[in-house]
Amino acid sequence: MWTDVMTGEFLGTTFMILLGGGVVANSMLRGTKGAGSSWLMINAGWGFAVMVGVLVSTSTGSPYGDLNPAVTIAKYLLGVHTDEFKVARMMLAELLGCFMGAVLVWAAYYPHWEVTRDPLRKRAVFCTDPAVANKAANVISEAIATVVLIFAIGSMVDSALITDQALPYLIGVLVWAIGLSLGGPTGNAMNPACDLAPRIAHWVLPIAGKGSSGWQYAWVPIAGPLLGAVLAAALRRVFL
Amino acid sequence: MWTDVMTGEFLGTTFMILLGGGVVANSMLRGTKGAGSSWLMINAGWGFAVMVGVLVSTSTGSPYGDLNPAVTIAKYLLGVHTDEFKVARMMLAELLGCFMGAVLVWAAYYPHWEVTRDPLRKRAVFCTDPAVANKAANVISEAIATVVLIFAIGSMVDSALITDQALPYLIGVLVWAIGLSLGGPTGNAMNPACDLAPRIAHWVLPIAGKGSSGWQYAWVPIAGPLLGAVLAAALRRVFL
Amino acid sequence: MWTDVMTGEFLGTTFMILLGGGVVANSMLRGTKGAGSSWLMINAGWGFAVMVGVLVSTSTGSPYGDLNPAVTIAKYLLGVHTDEFKVARMMLAELLGCFMGAVLVWAAYYPHWEVTRDPLRKRAVFCTDPAVANKAANVISEAIATVVLIFAIGSMVDSALITDQALPYLIGVLVWAIGLSLGGPTGNAMNPACDLAPRIAHWVLPIAGKGSSGWQYAWVPIAGPLLGAVLAAALRRVFL
Amino acid sequence: MWTDVMTGEFLGTTFMILLGGGVVANSMLRGTKGAGSSWLMINAGWGFAVMVGVLVSTSTGSPYGDLNPAVTIAKYLLGVHTDEFKVARMMLAELLGCFMGAVLVWAAYYPHWEVTRDPLRKRAVFCTDPAVANKAANVISEAIATVVLIFAIGSMVDSALITDQALPYLIGVLVWAIGLSLGGPTGNAMNPACDLAPRIAHWVLPIAGKGSSGWQYAWVPIAGPLLGAVLAAALRRVFL
Repeated sequence: MWTDVMTGEFLGTTFMILLGGGVVANSMLRGTKGAGSSWLMINAGWGFAVMVGVLVSTSTGSPYGDLNPAVTIAKYLLGVHTDEFKVARMMLAELLGCFMGAVLVWAAYYPHWEVTRDPLRKRAVFCTDPAVANKAANVISEAIATVVLIFAIGSMVDSALITDQALPYLIGVLVWAIGLSLGGPTGNAMNPACDLAPRIAHWVLPIAGKGSSGWQYAWVPIAGPLLGAVLAAALRRVFL
Repeated sequence: MWTDVMTGEFLGTTFMILLGGGVVANSMLRGTKGAGSSWLMINAGWGFAVMVGVLVSTSTGSPYGDLNPAVTIAKYLLGVHTDEFKVARMMLAELLGCFMGAVLVWAAYYPHWEVTRDPLRKRAVFCTDPAVANKAANVISEAIATVVLIFAIGSMVDSALITDQALPYLIGVLVWAIGLSLGGPTGNAMNPACDLAPRIAHWVLPIAGKGSSGWQYAWVPIAGPLLGAVLAAALRRVFL
Repeated sequence: MWTDVMTGEFLGTTFMILLGGGVVANSMLRGTKGAGSSWLMINAGWGFAVMVGVLVSTSTGSPYGDLNPAVTIAKYLLGVHTDEFKVARMMLAELLGCFMGAVLVWAAYYPHWEVTRDPLRKRAVFCTDPAVANKAANVISEAIATVVLIFAIGSMVDSALITDQALPYLIGVLVWAIGLSLGGPTGNAMNPACDLAPRIAHWVLPIAGKGSSGWQYAWVPIAGPLLGAVLAAALRRVFL
Repeated sequence: MWTDVMTGEFLGTTFMILLGGGVVANSMLRGTKGAGSSWLMINAGWGFAVMVGVLVSTSTGSPYGDLNPAVTIAKYLLGVHTDEFKVARMMLAELLGCFMGAVLVWAAYYPHWEVTRDPLRKRAVFCTDPAVANKAANVISEAIATVVLIFAIGSMVDSALITDQALPYLIGVLVWAIGLSLGGPTGNAMNPACDLAPRIAHWVLPIAGKGSSGWQYAWVPIAGPLLGAVLAAALRRVFL
């Protein structure tokens, strides 16, 4: 059954991917107002996208605002979430929301798919690909970025030097920061749902002149973040 | 009769358009200190412009700081505003303030109109035009951006993870975010008054070497945001 | 006699000009790490410089953190400051601090003056010059920018949507915003002391290969901000 | 013996250097997503890195979040720290954390060392070098930047215009600001540990195609920040 928590996670990830995919579209597609924009802009946009996602999610039914199966699993390993069914439902809602967000990006940028020639630039709007293809190294990069994400969010929640009311903004700044610092090798997915579900959307949508959906790489931004979630949970058990 | 709420909405929109049009002028006009600046800068400027507008508006008579007929109408549909006369007056004040702001941008950048050759760059300071002309797609883009704006502002007001005192800054960050992510196809007006009134200013002001005011497109940044306002209000009714 | 308020205004303006002149030096001088940086960066740096100046000033003796004779005069016209001697002393301390800050910028960037050829780029570190020389228009631009600065700071202090603890950061963001939006024609001095005192420093310091200190323009960034201060005070009297 | 404070300083500096070195790697190494990025981005990344370091440090055992021997020594001179053994242990933990962070940057960017030709760009990920080599001037630049850092942090802690809960973010913004404004001549290390320990990591790690570790300059970003710490402590004694 569908629950309020699922609604919150669904809407939060929908808004997150609409804005996060949107800023990549604005930079990558031909003829847009922001065509050719910088890595700084893409990551500012992604950070703000996560901030909006957390605010939407936590005000429409989810008390958590996880938006990310890697975060949900790390919280399960740390005993924050205890109900396997709830965890599975949250992850399902996160996948569905990421898919819906990707469809909306496609609609919002409708005239630009046809005028963009390079199919790799179109795919980049939906999912990550590595700067240098090296699957072991790419998994490690994704795992390190995800450890930083999850460990630092935990530190924010624990620290006396931050109020709960600053969390959405500072989580956005954190995502911005990780993208600037650790996004260089893989474009830091850090979130299995936000890479897989938009990749499926790329695969099924009638995008003008699209190419391959890059399935041979698709397991890396799933495995890396999940490995990072396990490592982050282990580190927090060791140090706290 | 003129009311305090109108004063607040008038002054808030005046400051908003002075800063929001100003950052486009700085990027678009020839010979300015910021000539040729990035989409990131334009949207940072616009986000901060809305923040300043909200602060000015809410401290000079309007308890709402709507600054935008689309927001005002969405609030009417959701029962936040209940008096049709008040709504009409607020929208009138918003239009007048946007016009005044555009006049001040013209004055502040006075020597630069003559040295700028391209009339499209001058018009861009006052109102939006599409990256790829496709009126149906442009209306949809504007509607999607406006839904994000209004739904996310509602989430901010509702969320326990934010204080009222953070609203002006975070609304500014939200506007910055939407511009980065969804401004690519149309330059995201999201506000009928802030596109129409400065377009009228462009039409009537003695701007050196100006061209057409682009009236054939003028209905799109009115219709799209109004459609978005209705959709956002409907979504909030469904989900909350 | 020297007072604690003067110490606060002196130290605040010293830090403000050290950081504000510094970011221009980093962008303008040859061979620096940030050579050729964008208008966005220069104004981010200036906004943060004012934030630091306010924090330093208000924690070292000045309860006001004015840092700017235009602000001090507007407050006098509005009855916030009532003692002419205090006002004069504050303005003296602000001038001295701006001079000291400019000397420190010269020291911090010592090896770069010699390797930079263009004397105009060196002078830009110390004081403003217009993008298009038109003294009447330049005075109007400076006055409009200063009205926004002073009126918006007043709105921030008045608004229920902001806490005092957010003021230093949001004043920094405001200065960033005004630079992006209204800095295009003149580089928005908005502050007679922060233009005049560093110009004097440029004139007296043994800067390698320096040119003219641009005295024919020096009155504009004094007159414009003072006119803006009077207008802002008048507007606040009318509307509040 | 290892203490909780050491754990906090160790983890905080690990995260700080992982993010701070990471953003330089993303800009400097060949083939990354952010290759060739701006000084604005590098310093945004460094500022956010310090914010994350402070949050991690203060939630994992250190009530201080110093992350920097120059800060630790200034606090000792000002009587905030009184136990020499604690001070020595904190500085050891800071060095070890900076080393660990540098190792993780190397791992996260593993495929990019080989494809980058210029050994100076690789070294820049680990430690600073001067824009113009002039050891006396470089020491002075580092000292001035460090005085601003330490004096301004003290002002933030003292000021009534800031809450403790805003400190991590505003310290991040301060570091961003100093980098923009005073990083031009030397890349502003401001921290002996974050320059020395990653330089040792560069020296010992099997980085593909690395060159010299630049030991002839290594004392400057140690001496400059230490001089700055002494000057900042003296200034605070004089003015407060």
